[in-house]
Amino acid sequence: DPKLKVFTCNANRQLAREIAVHIGLTLGNAEAIRFSDGECQIKLNESIRGADVFVIQPTSAPVNEHLMELLVMVDALKRASAKSINVVIPYFGYARQDRKARARDPITAKLVANLIETAGAHRIITMDLHATQIQGFFDIPVDHLLGVPILGKYFSEKGLSNICVVSPDHGGVTRARKLAERLGAPIAIIDKRRPEPNVVEMMNIVGNIEGKTAIIIDDMIDTAGTITLAANALVEAGAREVFACCTHPVLSGPAFERIANSRIQEFVVTNTIPIPEDKLIDKIKVLSVAPIIGEAIIRVHEELSVSKLFDYISL
Amino acid sequence: DPKLKVFTCNANRQLAREIAVHIGLTLGNAEAIRFSDGECQIKLNESIRGADVFVIQPTSAPVNEHLMELLVMVDALKRASAKSINVVIPYFGYARQDRKARARDPITAKLVANLIETAGAHRIITMDLHATQIQGFFDIPVDHLLGVPILGKYFSEKGLSNICVVSPDHGGVTRARKLAERLGAPIAIIDKRRPEPNVVEMMNIVGNIEGKTAIIIDDMIDTAGTITLAANALVEAGAREVFACCTHPVLSGPAFERIANSRIQEFVVTNTIPIPEDKLIDKIKVLSVAPIIGEAIIRVHEELSVSKLFDYISL
Ligand SMILES: Nc1ncnc2c1ncn2[C@@H]1O[C@H](COP(=O)(O)O)[C@@H](O)[C@H]1O
Ligand SMILES: Nc1ncnc2c1ncn2[C@@H]1O[C@H](COP(=O)(O)O)[C@@H](O)[C@H]1O
Repeated sequence: DPKLKVFTCNANRQLAREIAVHIGLTLGNAEAIRFSDGECQIKLNESIRGADVFVIQPTSAPVNEHLMELLVMVDALKRASAKSINVVIPYFGYARQDRKARARDPITAKLVANLIETAGAHRIITMDLHATQIQGFFDIPVDHLLGVPILGKYFSEKGLSNICVVSPDHGGVTRARKLAERLGAPIAIIDKRRPEPNVVEMMNIVGNIEGKTAIIIDDMIDTAGTITLAANALVEAGAREVFACCTHPVLSGPAFERIANSRIQEFVVTNTIPIPEDKLIDKIKVLSVAPIIGEAIIRVHEELSVSKLFDYISL
Repeated sequence: DPKLKVFTCNANRQLAREIAVHIGLTLGNAEAIRFSDGECQIKLNESIRGADVFVIQPTSAPVNEHLMELLVMVDALKRASAKSINVVIPYFGYARQDRKARARDPITAKLVANLIETAGAHRIITMDLHATQIQGFFDIPVDHLLGVPILGKYFSEKGLSNICVVSPDHGGVTRARKLAERLGAPIAIIDKRRPEPNVVEMMNIVGNIEGKTAIIIDDMIDTAGTITLAANALVEAGAREVFACCTHPVLSGPAFERIANSRIQEFVVTNTIPIPEDKLIDKIKVLSVAPIIGEAIIRVHEELSVSKLFDYISL
C-alpha cells in the first residue's frame, strides 16, 4: 500500500529495518542529524502527503536526544501533510516518573505524553509500559503490546522442566502470572525494600522455589541491581538454576558487569532497546519484537483490532 | 518579597546566581540531576506554593538536555502550585529553525514554544531572538530584551573614534542600526551567500569602511565562519581595526580557533551562554546581562512595563 510509510530516527534503526521488512516495505527516506552546535535537524527526503505514517523510535538513552528527534520528526510530518502520524515507541522512557513519589516531584511520564501529543501524534503504539496507567496519560489511542508472548514462546520451546516464574517485586505480579500461565508454572514473589533509586537492599522470597528452575521476569532491567541480588537470593533458597528475562534491556551503569558476574544462567531480552555489540556477552539472548510490532502496524493501518495480535503471537 | 522566587537548572548557574544577587535573593533550592540511565530528575527542595516563580535556563548546548530540564522543572513547579511560572530563556535555542526553509522542514522553534507552553509556562522572558517573529510562536506574554544597550554602553565607554557598525547580513540591519544610533555612527552591510549551514562563501561590503573602526554586530555567533571572513573582508576593504560583538556566544565547532586566529581585535559577548573557562582567551570580553534580566524580573513581578527597561539600561 503506497499510503503506508514507516520512518525512524536514530534510537533503533536496526529494529525499524526489521519491522519494515516484516511489513514488506523499505524504510522511508529521512535523516535525523545534528548541526554543529548539537541542535537536531530532521530531513524528510520524500513526500508523505496523505500517507499513514508510522515513526519507530524508542526513547531509550540518550533519552532527551531521542525524544527530541521524535518530536521534531512528528512536527515535520505534520507540516508535510501526513494523513495520520502513528508514533511507535517500543520502549517508553521516563515511565518510572509516573507519579508524585515525593512532595513536589514532577510527573515526567505525563509531561512526555503531552509533548508527543502537542507535536502532533495521532496514535501511540508501545510495549510493556512500566505502569499501564500511562496509557491514560494520553488523550489519543494507545496500543499497548506485551513482551510476555515472545518471552514465553522462547522459554516454552527451550523445554525446561519444574519451572517457577518469579516476580522481582509486587508491581510485577500480573506480568509474572501471565508468563507462568503460558508455561504452566507456579509463581513466587520477591519482597524487597529499595532505600534509594538504583540501590537495592533486603530480599525475601514469597513462595517455594526449592529445586526449581526460576525464571525472573521484569518489564525493564536498568542497573541490574535488583535482578542479580534476586538471583542470589533464589540460589540461596535452593533454586536449581536461574534465568532472567525482560522486555526492555535498559542496562545502564554497572549492569553488564553485574549480569556477567551473576548467578543468572541466561538473560533473555527483546530488542526494543539496542544493545551495543561489544557488550553483547554470550549469556544475553535477544529476541525480536519486529514481528509483533510489524503486525500491529499492519492491523492499525487496516483498521483491525490490535488486541487480536496476542492470538497471533501465542502460536 | 517572599512570593518572588528564582530557580535555575544546569545551563547557566553562574548567570542565575548573578541575577538573584541583583534582585537581592538567593537562588531557590532545586537540583536538576540524572538517573543512571541519563533520565533527568528535578528535585524541588523548598515549597513554592503561591509564589511567582522565575526559572532561568538558556537552551544552549547540549540543547536537548537543557530544554528537557526546563520542561521537567516547569512541570514540577506547576504541580507544586506555583502562582505563576515565568520562564527566563536568555538564549532561545532552535531559533534558526523558524520557518520552512526547504520543503518538508520542521519548524522546530515553534515546536519548542509549544512544548514550553504545554509544560505549563505562563510567561517568557528572552533576549535577542534570532527572528523577532518567534514572539508570535507563543500564546503567552513574551518580554523580549535586547543586548544592544549593553554592547553599546561598552563600546561608547571605550571611546573609539570614526566607528562604522557592520551588519554581517541583511537580516541584522535593524540591530546594527540600533547600535549605530547609540554610537552616533554610520552602518555598513555585508552581502553574503551561504550555500550550506555552517559554511560561508562570498563577501561583498555595502558602505564605506575605509580607515574606520568596524564593529560587526550579530545576535549570535556559532561556528564564527561568517564573522571571521567578514573581518577579513573589512580589513581588505581598508578598515583600520575590527571589533565584533554579539549577544549569544554559541561558539561551536571551530569557533574558538577561528576567533583566536582572526583579524578581530576584540570579541565582545554577553553571558547568556556560559563560555568554558579554558576557552576564554584574552580577546573575548564578556558583559553580564544579569542587571537587565534582574530588572526585568522585578518589573514583571511588580506588574510594571518591561519596555521601560531600555531607558534604564541606556543610562
Ligand atoms: N530513570 C530512572 N532511574 C532510576 N530510578 C528512577 C528513574 N526514574 C524514576 N525513578 C525512580 O523510580 C521509582 C519508581 O519506580 P517504581 O517504584 O519501580 O515504579 C521512583 O522512586 C522514581 O524516583
Ligand atoms: N543549529 C543550527 N546550526 C546551523 N544552521 C542552522 C541551525 N538551525 C538552523 N540552521 C539553518 O540556518 C538557516 C537559517 O538561518 P538564518 O538564515 O540566519 O535565519 C536555515 O537554513 C537552517 O536550516
